[in-house]
Amino acid sequence: MATVHLPSITRVAICGGTHGNELSGVYLVRELQKRERETQKEAEPVSVVTVLSNPRAVQQCRRYTEMDLNRCFTSAILSKPLDVGALYEMERAQELNKILGPRGSTTAVDLVCDLHNTTANMGLCLITYSDNNWISLHVMKYLQREIQSVPVRLVDLGMPHSEAYSLESVGKHGFSIEVGPQPHGLLRADIFNAMQDGVRSMLDWIRRFNSGTIFHGGEVDVYTMVRSVDYPKDPETGSISATIHPQLQDRDFCVLRPGDPMFLSFTGQTQLFEEEEPLYPIFVNESSYYEKGIAMWLTRLRRVQIPPLQVQAD
Amino acid sequence: MATVHLPSITRVAICGGTHGNELSGVYLVRELQKRERETQKEAEPVSVVTVLSNPRAVQQCRRYTEMDLNRCFTSAILSKPLDVGALYEMERAQELNKILGPRGSTTAVDLVCDLHNTTANMGLCLITYSDNNWISLHVMKYLQREIQSVPVRLVDLGMPHSEAYSLESVGKHGFSIEVGPQPHGLLRADIFNAMQDGVRSMLDWIRRFNSGTIFHGGEVDVYTMVRSVDYPKDPETGSISATIHPQLQDRDFCVLRPGDPMFLSFTGQTQLFEEEEPLYPIFVNESSYYEKGIAMWLTRLRRVQIPPLQVQAD
Repeated sequence: MATVHLPSITRVAICGGTHGNELSGVYLVRELQKRERETQKEAEPVSVVTVLSNPRAVQQCRRYTEMDLNRCFTSAILSKPLDVGALYEMERAQELNKILGPRGSTTAVDLVCDLHNTTANMGLCLITYSDNNWISLHVMKYLQREIQSVPVRLVDLGMPHSEAYSLESVGKHGFSIEVGPQPHGLLRADIFNAMQDGVRSMLDWIRRFNSGTIFHGGEVDVYTMVRSVDYPKDPETGSISATIHPQLQDRDFCVLRPGDPMFLSFTGQTQLFEEEEPLYPIFVNESSYYEKGIAMWLTRLRRVQIPPLQVQAD
Repeated sequence: MATVHLPSITRVAICGGTHGNELSGVYLVRELQKRERETQKEAEPVSVVTVLSNPRAVQQCRRYTEMDLNRCFTSAILSKPLDVGALYEMERAQELNKILGPRGSTTAVDLVCDLHNTTANMGLCLITYSDNNWISLHVMKYLQREIQSVPVRLVDLGMPHSEAYSLESVGKHGFSIEVGPQPHGLLRADIFNAMQDGVRSMLDWIRRFNSGTIFHGGEVDVYTMVRSVDYPKDPETGSISATIHPQLQDRDFCVLRPGDPMFLSFTGQTQLFEEEEPLYPIFVNESSYYEKGIAMWLTRLRRVQIPPLQVQAD
């Protein structure tokens, strides 16, 4: 494939606390801000802005206060005139869009990286809206080489950018980084370190890219969202009647074949996976998805050819 | 040691949801209530009452709504006249004390078993106020024999019953059962099943006890609370500046020797354990203890001689 040339990435935003109880991002952003205050600004070609996205939710150590901030970056909400008494997260989304965007404008930062934790065994995972964002795919390939402590993968939401709803969509480029497993509301050193390594390697990649390094193309694995699956529920009470089967728990990104165990009911019955084709479950038993009616997402694994990449000459 | 004879245990309370986001107990109590409705009451010598302790917190999937219910069973709160606008959990504690107690009275249920989850790697753990509650120690010994899927242990709070603050203290006998690791706000099949096995075996033990079985004495391990340890904190902001060291994370009930790593700061410095004697950490990185300033408890391990036990003849 022919080398793709893209403009340099000179303004990067690193955001944590978009969900207030996902503590690795909260503490990593605070740590970066502290180091920024303590060290002399080096004359660097990359300017990094760090943002604590939902300070009110962080303060309360909750996912959100009134509605999920990471579902507020839709065109409808970003353009809505907000009256007195508007939901806090809607106001904050508009504010963040002003600071880091506005989305689709020339003033938007070049790259938004939004840091998240999950209770699922996801390792370190980049999430993007499409599979032809060469920067995300090259960063992922670079992280796979640089990071040994956890597996690194990329999930493609497979939706048009016009339907975007999450914070990273306000930048010219963007992705979220999910790291897990970590219970919400606490910090594990292994997960914090994996996130810190991910951010450090990403900035390293950006510096190399800006300085003219040619990144070779090749094949990478991409997991594309197919559909979500809810927990089995009691038809009368609407309450969950089964958990993730022990043979599936903690096996995010592992193939699930037709006939494999999927759920185990409280009375001991196994429910099998009845899809026609093998798929790859992710976000298996993510605690904050209970309220969304999502026990896991099913994805399709594809090999994607990516082109060599180099910064545009001035 | 001479055989100890104790009255039969005819009324048992099994409580879940004392903390509303510890879901194994919530769903196990609901499941037991469902089975109770669906099956004919057998003519059994044990009457089991199941209680969802904090329904308002369960509804919101939070630990508590206004204050930690499991710290409300103090003599001061239980005897306090409650005005209009009193905290919900204080009212509920008095209500539960009426239903299951009152504490110290002859009408109190014989045994209260309160079900909890922890994010720490605690296996299945009975918690009692003292180490001479022969029923708790014998139940623990029986569970160690019956349950293979997780380790079973007993923690002794080592405090006089007059200082009791938790739900199980309203029964004539009582203990809480902690099962983990499980993030709060979700259900893992392995942890749910371990709790279910624990409750089943406990009821089995009670039936055997009531029917006259002699339980042999012997030696058991007891972990007695020594003191709690807080996370290192930034002296200026009061914010956490380190996590549990990766070598200590998930090693609840494993010996910690002077000089062993204890914390790892965000900048990579290791803080060592500086006690004089080896101790045994428990509740290592329990998420709900962040607000209480507890990174872990340190316990002392002792071998305790327990006497043979048999029900009193009528």
